[in-house]
This record gives sequence, C-alpha cells and structure tokens, in this order.
Amino acid sequence: MAADILIIGGAGMVGQKLANRIAAGGIGRAIESLTLHDIVTAKCPPADFPTAASTGNLADTGAAARLAAARPDIVYHLAAIVSGDAESNFDKGWDINARGSWALLEALRAEHEASGGTYRPRVVFASSIAVFGPPFPDRIDDDFLCAPQTSYGAQKAVTELLIADYARKGFIDGLSLRLPTLCVRPGKPNLAASSFFSGIIREPLNGETAILPVPDSVRHWHASPRAAAKFFTDAATLDTARLAGRLSLNMPGVSCTVAEQIEALRSIAGEAAVAGIEPRPDETIHRIVSGWPRDFAPHRARALGFTAEQDFEEIIRVYLEDDLPVRPD
Amino acid sequence: MAADILIIGGAGMVGQKLANRIAAGGIGRAIESLTLHDIVTAKCPPADFPTAASTGNLADTGAAARLAAARPDIVYHLAAIVSGDAESNFDKGWDINARGSWALLEALRAEHEASGGTYRPRVVFASSIAVFGPPFPDRIDDDFLCAPQTSYGAQKAVTELLIADYARKGFIDGLSLRLPTLCVRPGKPNLAASSFFSGIIREPLNGETAILPVPDSVRHWHASPRAAAKFFTDAATLDTARLAGRLSLNMPGVSCTVAEQIEALRSIAGEAAVAGIEPRPDETIHRIVSGWPRDFAPHRARALGFTAEQDFEEIIRVYLEDDLPVRPD
Repeated sequence: MAADILIIGGAGMVGQKLANRIAAGGIGRAIESLTLHDIVTAKCPPADFPTAASTGNLADTGAAARLAAARPDIVYHLAAIVSGDAESNFDKGWDINARGSWALLEALRAEHEASGGTYRPRVVFASSIAVFGPPFPDRIDDDFLCAPQTSYGAQKAVTELLIADYARKGFIDGLSLRLPTLCVRPGKPNLAASSFFSGIIREPLNGETAILPVPDSVRHWHASPRAAAKFFTDAATLDTARLAGRLSLNMPGVSCTVAEQIEALRSIAGEAAVAGIEPRPDETIHRIVSGWPRDFAPHRARALGFTAEQDFEEIIRVYLEDDLPVRPD
Repeated sequence: MAADILIIGGAGMVGQKLANRIAAGGIGRAIESLTLHDIVTAKCPPADFPTAASTGNLADTGAAARLAAARPDIVYHLAAIVSGDAESNFDKGWDINARGSWALLEALRAEHEASGGTYRPRVVFASSIAVFGPPFPDRIDDDFLCAPQTSYGAQKAVTELLIADYARKGFIDGLSLRLPTLCVRPGKPNLAASSFFSGIIREPLNGETAILPVPDSVRHWHASPRAAAKFFTDAATLDTARLAGRLSLNMPGVSCTVAEQIEALRSIAGEAAVAGIEPRPDETIHRIVSGWPRDFAPHRARALGFTAEQDFEEIIRVYLEDDLPVRPD
C-alpha cells in the first residue's frame, strides 16, 4: 500500500533535505502523498506524487488531532524550538518540545483506537545527542545514561520515553534517532553555540571570513545534513522488531577535532581558504561546547545499516555537492 | 529555620514508615510540622510537632497548587499508582504518575516565582529500578541507560527528567531515589509480581504457607522498608551540589537469589519455617521477574553516605523488629 508521509517541521533545514530526498529517491516503498507541516509555509519539492504544505503550531489545541486525522502512514517528527530558545524560554520549550510531542502521540493513539487497531503509523523522531550530559567517557556507547544538562535535551529525552512507551503498547510503530551535530549547515551563521563548526568551513568556501571561538583541540561529533536525511529515509522501512524494545539510537557520525576540520578544509580548498579562519577566543562558547559529547561508538545503529560519512573531508565534499551557492562570477 | 514537611503518598507503606521515622528521630534539622497527603486519610504518628492529614488526587485540577500554597520546605513525592495498575490502565498511569508529578513541579515553581525566588523546596522523589529494562549487565552501574519496559518505569523516568530540569533551573532543590524492591513488606500478599519475594519470608514467620512461583536461582535487588525510610530522611539534608547535576541515584541494596533468601530464613527461623514455602511454578511471574535487574554497583549513593542492609539475614531481622505481628498466643 502506498504511503502517505507527514513531515512535522518540514520547513526547517533537515525537513527540507528530507523532503527533497523523498521526492528524488523515495523511501523504499510506494508513496501516495507528502505533507510538509510547520509554523511557516514549507516549500514543497517537485515530485511525481502529490505534495502539500500545512501550517500551525503543534502545541495548539486541536492541531495534533487535525494532523493525525489524515492517518499518515509515516510521521517524521522534526518540529522543535532550538536549544538556546528552549533554555531562555522555559515554558515555551516544554510546551512545544514535550507537550507538543505528547499531544501528537495522543492524537495518533486516538486514530489507532478509532481504527480498531489497524492504524499504527511509523513515527520517526528527531532526537539529539543533547540527551547526554557530562562527564562523558571518551566514547559514548549505546548503554550510556541520559543526563541532559539543558531543557532542550530533557525535552528530547522525555519525548523518547513517550515514543518508546506508546510503541511498546502498540499504538504506534516508533523510534528515535539521536542526531550528531549537523555540519556543514548551509546558509547564514546563527546564534547557536555550535554555529562555528559549520561557519569555519562554509564561510571560507564562500570567500568570507569565519570566527573560531574555541581552541582547535576541541573534539565533537558530526554528520552531514545529507546523512541525516538518509537516516530518516532508512528509518521509514526499518524492521523495528530488530530494536528489541530499545527504540532510541545513537546515530553514526565523524568524531574530529577542530584542527582536523581545518586540515580537511586545507586539503580540499587550499591554504587560502584556511586563511579565512580567524581565531577569536570566546570563553562562554568554549564552556558550553566543553559540555558536549566528543565521540560515540554507535554499534547498534551501524549494525542496523545506518551510515554517515567516513571522515570530515567527505563531509566537506557533501556540502560542496549539495549546498555551495552558485556564485555569480 | 524549622521545616514544614509534606509527604505526598503519606498513607502508603513507605509513606507511613517515613512519617514514623520523622516523628521518632527527625531529619537532622528542626521540624515545624508534618503533613501527610494521600487519596485516603493517612494515619498521623504521635510527634512533638503538629501533624495533619490531607486528602485528594494530585492529578486533579488545583490539587497540586493547594499543596504548594503552604510552601513546605521539604516535599517527599511518593504518590503513584503501582506498576500493574499503570500497565493495565494507560491513561490513569500517565495522568497520575507523570502529569500529576509535572503539576506538582509547576505548582512549586509558581510558589518559587511568587516568592521572588526565595522559596526553593527540597523535593525528594521516590523513583524505582523499574526505570531500567533488559538486557542488563550482571551489575548495573551508575552510568547505565534508562530503557524502561513498563509504563510505570517510563513514568518514573519522565518524572526524574522533569525534576532534574526544574532543579537545574533553580525552581526546586530536588533529587530522585531509585528504590530497590522493598522486602520484607508487612501485611498481606498483593497482586504485584514481586509479592512472593516478601511472602516467602513473611508467611512462614507468621506460621503460614507461602507460594514460590519461580526457580530459587532467581536473583533480585532488595532493601528493607526501614532502609527506604532512612534513604528519605538522609535525603532531606543532603548537599545536592555533591550530585553534580546527576540527580537520580541508584540506591544501595542487597543482591541475592531466592535460594539465599531461603537460607537466611532457615538460619534465623529454622527448618520448620522453610517447610512453609511451597514451590508452585508460574511461568507468567517467572517471565516478568526475568526482566528485572539482578544487581547494582551503586557507587554514587554509597559515596554520599546512603546505606542499606549488609545481607538478607539483616533484612529479615529488620522485619522481625519492626513489623512481625504480635501474636495472640
């Protein structure tokens, strides 16, 4: 049976990458339709099946029920307010990132029950390595505890627990993917503390200067936006019985230091590009980033067939192929 | 300043043990009052400070706000519907065990904010080893993931995450204690799958017959009700800065097999007592119990000074001292 697909958070960077990937290559089963939901109107990709954009705030009364009423076969839940916003605005973060997710699950369960149990959608939740908090081992394995040190991480962890329990009870068929930091993000720098990880590659490749606020010894965990989109399309058809009840997965990525990122840039774009990186230490950003995971041993996700890039050079090449702006010269 | 203490779930077995312990020995600081809240009227122990019972369902609108309005300095949150009930009644479990806890935290935060930030109660939450799910290592250490396989466990894990985030933001000063299975429970057998762990000791000591539904090779993690009550009084004055942001603790206990439990009974009460244990295999109970933790390495809790019994014989002696009914012969 052809699948109706819903992407909640479809206007965001990952939502758009995912929509384009689905339109271009599918998900390994026939597609009936694709709906992109967000608080702003999402751009729909050209596709050989119907696409539509819908708008609204998932946390508003009735919003989740309206989305669930169409009984989508696959629900990608990517909607969230970002980490800095959730930290500054406690109520907003918990309302949207946790209560909104819960409302979605309740709405899907209501459709499951109204269908006499035949409707049981695949739900793929975009979680984050923010569910982890320090101190960390050098490499985080699949059994490591969630002790988030941000509201955003706590909200992701709560949603994971809800998804696991709704799935265990058979109301949905769900799983959660804990994404690495996505790099190289296209577009402009933003206010996220992680922004520089992309900026020090993207800006030099676009002939601009980038600020490096931390020592180049800082190590972190990365995957490309393309890899993330593929995680989600692969997750559409995964046999979730293989997860054996542990429905949250640490996704593959590349662990490297900032120095290694810079070496990869030098190798691909030469000394001139590297000269565009300007060290300007920022203690606040350094302190925040020091509390982030450095490396993972994501055995379970790899055993299930999920893959990311092999090294940071490959991550840069993906950016060049997928996102480098066409320059007007 | 003398403390006003609130025990939510004050009519339950642990709530009563805790109330009696507070009345008899205090908490290491002066006490102004003790309030026992529950859905039924709790018995108040004799004490040299005022005690009161209050009744209501924490999940009802306004109930949490009324409890918080008295601005108790120490809030023990022991209220929950039990594991079997939460598994059979999905809505009821999530309503009371998760939404009820969240409503309590919101009500305490509202008082914190109304006070201009001066009110910041110590909140001690009764969590459970049900936050863990199989497969387990032989001994569960302090870094092991929460992957609950019951709704009850998921609700406890969600509440832990909420408490940690409300505490991190400074609205409360909280922590969560993951209790072992409490043994020997006084009173009658109940429908819990764990009931036999107490029954095979309690019934023979009271001259009755007990059913053993599992092989005697089954290993589990126990502490006495007295030890649990002491965990809670010790937690009242613990310097939570020592937890370094990881506010959930695996509490100490005794790991032993059913055969070791029976040996301890034999050593204390003789062969006649052991003869009162009647093996009657029950595959359902065996399957449930097989999914439970067997042993822990609770280094953090022990380093903070929490202690339980040394062995199962000591657990039996605690029952004899605290709970054995006075026989009318």
